[in-house]
Amino acid sequence: MTRWLIENGLFVTMNPEQPILKGWLSVEGTVISAMGEGEAPAEIRDQASEKVDGTGHLFLPGLINTHGHAAMSLLRGLADDLALQDWLENHMWPMEGKFTGDDVYWGTSLAAAEMILSGTTTFLDMYDHMDRVAEVVDKSGLRATLARGVIGLCPPDVQTAKLNEAVGFAKRWHGGANGRIQVMMSPHAPYTCPPDYIERIVAAARELNLPLHTHMSETAAEVAANVKDYGTRPVEHLDNLGLFSGPSLVAHAVHLTDEEIALLAERGVAVSHNPVSNLKLASGVARVPELLRAGVTVSLGTDSAASNNNLDLFEEIRLAALLHKGVSGDPTAVPAAEALRMGTVYGAKALGLEGVTGMLKSGMKADLIGVSIRKPHFVPATDYVSHLVYAASGADVAHVWVDGKQLLRDRELLTLDVERIRYEAQRCFDRLRG
Amino acid sequence: MTRWLIENGLFVTMNPEQPILKGWLSVEGTVISAMGEGEAPAEIRDQASEKVDGTGHLFLPGLINTHGHAAMSLLRGLADDLALQDWLENHMWPMEGKFTGDDVYWGTSLAAAEMILSGTTTFLDMYDHMDRVAEVVDKSGLRATLARGVIGLCPPDVQTAKLNEAVGFAKRWHGGANGRIQVMMSPHAPYTCPPDYIERIVAAARELNLPLHTHMSETAAEVAANVKDYGTRPVEHLDNLGLFSGPSLVAHAVHLTDEEIALLAERGVAVSHNPVSNLKLASGVARVPELLRAGVTVSLGTDSAASNNNLDLFEEIRLAALLHKGVSGDPTAVPAAEALRMGTVYGAKALGLEGVTGMLKSGMKADLIGVSIRKPHFVPATDYVSHLVYAASGADVAHVWVDGKQLLRDRELLTLDVERIRYEAQRCFDRLRG
Repeated sequence: MTRWLIENGLFVTMNPEQPILKGWLSVEGTVISAMGEGEAPAEIRDQASEKVDGTGHLFLPGLINTHGHAAMSLLRGLADDLALQDWLENHMWPMEGKFTGDDVYWGTSLAAAEMILSGTTTFLDMYDHMDRVAEVVDKSGLRATLARGVIGLCPPDVQTAKLNEAVGFAKRWHGGANGRIQVMMSPHAPYTCPPDYIERIVAAARELNLPLHTHMSETAAEVAANVKDYGTRPVEHLDNLGLFSGPSLVAHAVHLTDEEIALLAERGVAVSHNPVSNLKLASGVARVPELLRAGVTVSLGTDSAASNNNLDLFEEIRLAALLHKGVSGDPTAVPAAEALRMGTVYGAKALGLEGVTGMLKSGMKADLIGVSIRKPHFVPATDYVSHLVYAASGADVAHVWVDGKQLLRDRELLTLDVERIRYEAQRCFDRLRG
Repeated sequence: MTRWLIENGLFVTMNPEQPILKGWLSVEGTVISAMGEGEAPAEIRDQASEKVDGTGHLFLPGLINTHGHAAMSLLRGLADDLALQDWLENHMWPMEGKFTGDDVYWGTSLAAAEMILSGTTTFLDMYDHMDRVAEVVDKSGLRATLARGVIGLCPPDVQTAKLNEAVGFAKRWHGGANGRIQVMMSPHAPYTCPPDYIERIVAAARELNLPLHTHMSETAAEVAANVKDYGTRPVEHLDNLGLFSGPSLVAHAVHLTDEEIALLAERGVAVSHNPVSNLKLASGVARVPELLRAGVTVSLGTDSAASNNNLDLFEEIRLAALLHKGVSGDPTAVPAAEALRMGTVYGAKALGLEGVTGMLKSGMKADLIGVSIRKPHFVPATDYVSHLVYAASGADVAHVWVDGKQLLRDRELLTLDVERIRYEAQRCFDRLRG
């Protein structure tokens, strides 16, 4: 088993028992084996096959992106500043309809490269051609929660085929890539899946003992249509369909009533907040302070690079901390430490990975990043949690490890060929645009 | 006169007559002498003492930061997530009260390094010990508009001394540093300067033929206090005091009525929008779409690193494009190109530097930046204005030139010693905190 060590490091652990540690962290195989103040014991130093000098760096758990569609990175900048329906119907869907497995492979590779380069170590992906996505996860070394997002606006036999595909994917890949891949079942949204189809997907999830993920209450128009079509708002609708009777994570949840927030809290439903995408598509501002106060687990997602347009989770962390202050008028809303928890600890919890990742602690997976702090925007050395949230960006990430393996060293990608990915992604895009 | 050339470049000019140019740009002394498609003429190539290969880079005008307090970078991360009055009275003011000229010099140097590293070429600074700020501008090579911000809550003799100091500074430095320094006169805010003192500052500005800069309508509480104290809201109040009878730029302008927007447009008052600071201090969201529609020049500012907490203007550009969509519910609000104009062309106009900087055009100053685009988040090559606004960050800036002189080369600062600055800024902070 490989044993290695970070020395002279400053660790923002996200572990409330020891939030900041100046010292060392050792890894055995895929897990953090020990941590301590000051110098590492001689025994641990002797056993280490590699010693990373942490001077000038700040280490923290790898960031966790809990909602996205990685392959859509191929559509970055294709269409912006448009009304949602125009954007979807005239730009996104026509292009996505042409996506082959190859496009998904290279689009996801592009996203994986960008995520590693900006400090994300675990990501949730809801898309199609998921075997190709799983291949990228396997190759890149990232940790991922993958969901075949199914749209049910199709004949019954196609619905069944899609559900079977999702089930087959789950059986093939849940626990795959040395345990780095988890699978969720995913009806795309209440407005793209008829109620009986959602019930079938929920039943399949229960049978496979897998969590559920869906888009919910992203826009006011969607909520109004749900009321018109089904007589209930989306939260009650999905609750009636049994979606919240087991572990579940909903993306967006922008438009919620007090009663809906209370119900999400009661059912233990986690919410993936996507502040950049919600602003860019003019969906609105989610009621994050109220969700947090109610005890809902709120994590962060970038959504796709087509509505963001990057995958730098530091931006989501910063915007989560900034936006709700400005909109609520309360400068104490979503403090820096809480925003950082949303991007780490709460992200892990939302994905059912509490105790596995999202925190630097002995026994947990060695998913961590090293941020280079020898830069003007980290001066003076006041509060590093504040600096991470309000001043840093993904470009400050120098090193990334997942499952104990290094994926980025001094900003050099070790598992992916970025030149090849840039070339292939551009090639795919050019062909798709025709 | 030095002549040099950028070849094989992709230029986002911000010149509506030729927005995108694939080709070359030549510089003679401090100005852009010529630009063209494809290869540069042999004559221009022969005369160039240096040829910069622009392959893999995107060039655009240097960014313009129209509101800040550079020296406050010394207080980055000292106090966050607090109510405004607590933050100001218990954290900022006690520290600032201890600032010496030396602190201002090193704090401003820290800010200058960060601004160059993130692509800002011109900045407005409103502060104290302005001779020391001017020294930093001179040394760093940046272009700046400097204003001794005076607070008039003091005895008449102190008021007079401060005004004389501001006038003396203007006489010493307006047009200084080879013309790179402009000066504005600056009453700090209507709530920190009695009306008769504002009138004296306005009179001095008119005599010196200088523009005016002030904070205005940043918070709802400030507007209410103005009504209580003077019977008018801040816009009418300042208009009555003559502040808008000549060139003027107001920072923030978050809380405005339709009538106030119309008056600012009529008077030709420019507004510096500071979206990050306004969110962080929970001041609210400025009515930027309405200001732009009314024809007001809206530029961007970071405010200080104590309420931001970095000076990366790409973030302000992105947030200006995102925030107003999400808050207004209109995804076409502040399109990408308009946000980029706010950070360049409109910034120049707000500072009275239209035709001087903010655009790549023959005859204008050679203030430009080169952004490295060989990165995943610039793929695919769809719309580079979109990528600059929605995907880029200051860390993508590789090269910076101001007045024809290179200040940053492959992210190496050429005019400032960043190691020394980090050391001295930390030393100043440690002494201030005592």
